[in-house]
Amino acid sequence: MFKRLCVIGTGLIGGSIARAARAQGLCQEIVAFGREKNLPNLKLAKELGVIDQFYTDIGLALENADLVIIATPVGSMQGIFELIKPYWNEQALYSDAGSTKGSVVAAATAVFGHVPVNFVPAHPIAGAERSGVDASHAELFKNRRLIITPLEDTDPQLLDKLTVFWQRIGSSVSVMSVEHHDTVLAATSHLPHILAFALVGLLGRKDEQREIFKYAAGGFKDFSRIASSDPTMWLDICLANKQEIIPLIQQFKTELSHIEQLLADNQSRQLFDTFTYARNARQRFLDTLDD
Amino acid sequence: MFKRLCVIGTGLIGGSIARAARAQGLCQEIVAFGREKNLPNLKLAKELGVIDQFYTDIGLALENADLVIIATPVGSMQGIFELIKPYWNEQALYSDAGSTKGSVVAAATAVFGHVPVNFVPAHPIAGAERSGVDASHAELFKNRRLIITPLEDTDPQLLDKLTVFWQRIGSSVSVMSVEHHDTVLAATSHLPHILAFALVGLLGRKDEQREIFKYAAGGFKDFSRIASSDPTMWLDICLANKQEIIPLIQQFKTELSHIEQLLADNQSRQLFDTFTYARNARQRFLDTLDD
Repeated sequence: MFKRLCVIGTGLIGGSIARAARAQGLCQEIVAFGREKNLPNLKLAKELGVIDQFYTDIGLALENADLVIIATPVGSMQGIFELIKPYWNEQALYSDAGSTKGSVVAAATAVFGHVPVNFVPAHPIAGAERSGVDASHAELFKNRRLIITPLEDTDPQLLDKLTVFWQRIGSSVSVMSVEHHDTVLAATSHLPHILAFALVGLLGRKDEQREIFKYAAGGFKDFSRIASSDPTMWLDICLANKQEIIPLIQQFKTELSHIEQLLADNQSRQLFDTFTYARNARQRFLDTLDD
Repeated sequence: MFKRLCVIGTGLIGGSIARAARAQGLCQEIVAFGREKNLPNLKLAKELGVIDQFYTDIGLALENADLVIIATPVGSMQGIFELIKPYWNEQALYSDAGSTKGSVVAAATAVFGHVPVNFVPAHPIAGAERSGVDASHAELFKNRRLIITPLEDTDPQLLDKLTVFWQRIGSSVSVMSVEHHDTVLAATSHLPHILAFALVGLLGRKDEQREIFKYAAGGFKDFSRIASSDPTMWLDICLANKQEIIPLIQQFKTELSHIEQLLADNQSRQLFDTFTYARNARQRFLDTLDD
């Protein structure tokens, strides 16, 4: 399908894309670009057979690449676009794996003056609290959703090509606007992460004063899992999508204040209805997973 | 160890206590008390071999029972104490499995004028989003914590006896005050449940307007799991421990407002530190599980 895939960023996501593309025979050769400071990681990726070769020279890395996927934290995207710009190849397909799309589009626009028609923004919804190339695996995207957020003048043929690439990796591809993506992900992913970080932080400080964690049950383990996510990556995501996240935090505080008031007033019926609505809503969510 | 165990309430917890006690040979006979409306559940418990016999007459159920465990929602405890009172046996050991202890002690005091010395309040920390006797199993409490919250004049021999009972079921027994229990559980269990109910409720209403659940990932599935908990049970718990829960909701809102402000001000360093502290705190929590 492709001659040479160049992965920029070989962490969990970039490494898993490389592994999956190789497993499905989607490209003949896989190379990676990384900075000097990432040499140990790049060497590990090569040792593990995730990539065939790596370069710390962007020009060499991009040479003859007909598919380039940027899988670095969203905060670094603008710097990556600046590095790539001198070597931009109109014949190649460029994409990314960033968790926020508005910020990626803004970064491309800042560097190129517009979003190149052969850059097709994408986001595989396959988080994990683990990170690094050693955690990568070829099945990470299997049965997961992949969202493509094309712009008005995105090349439709390249959009199709990227769709097929991700489908062959096993993903279910959805296409939506950049704005809709960022609104949806703020609710289903970014806000929950912030709640988890906030709760575990609050409880952690209490635990320092008097042990409480040892009395937490399995429910807390699951609930707090996403608080083990990579702080660097999540700092980037939260800042990149803060215009969506901040109003959600405010709505969530209002929701909490409502429950607090119902508790204070012993409004059993309304509390029961609130909990029941949530339980039913989660069942609706579980039902979408079974589709 | 006991001749006759009488379980009052044969749901997930009561059923699992009965199964575990039988599996470990801790009692010769297991009976249950239930109301008329619970007959289908009681019949199922007998069919499944969880109990030997059931009664809708409390006097018959308690006859010759030397261990009585109340495993009903905490809101029903006072009514149960009233039912038991005429048949109270000074030679028997009474305990419960309620998730809040202050409310149980208050219910006992309201009925008896004091907490009987042979009532030893306890709480197995083994929640699950499933409920009902068909979900019960003998291993539910294995390697889980069981908290006993004795009062000043609780019979020390019965405290020891209950400790051994739960240890033989596989639990790790901790002893603490009623107040400390309720403070700790409000933080590690009750607040997380309220956050999960609040988030899934908020997102559920958004999902009704425009589908968002289908784009949620595995992290959301784990984070929201406890929102599938039984609304009736959680209504009881939240009302029973609201004096601990309400201040925690307020502290959590303050925590969120702090993060919101850091985001608005692009305070990268402080946000990174906040997320990192939470990640490390969760690791500390995971380390306590391995102990």
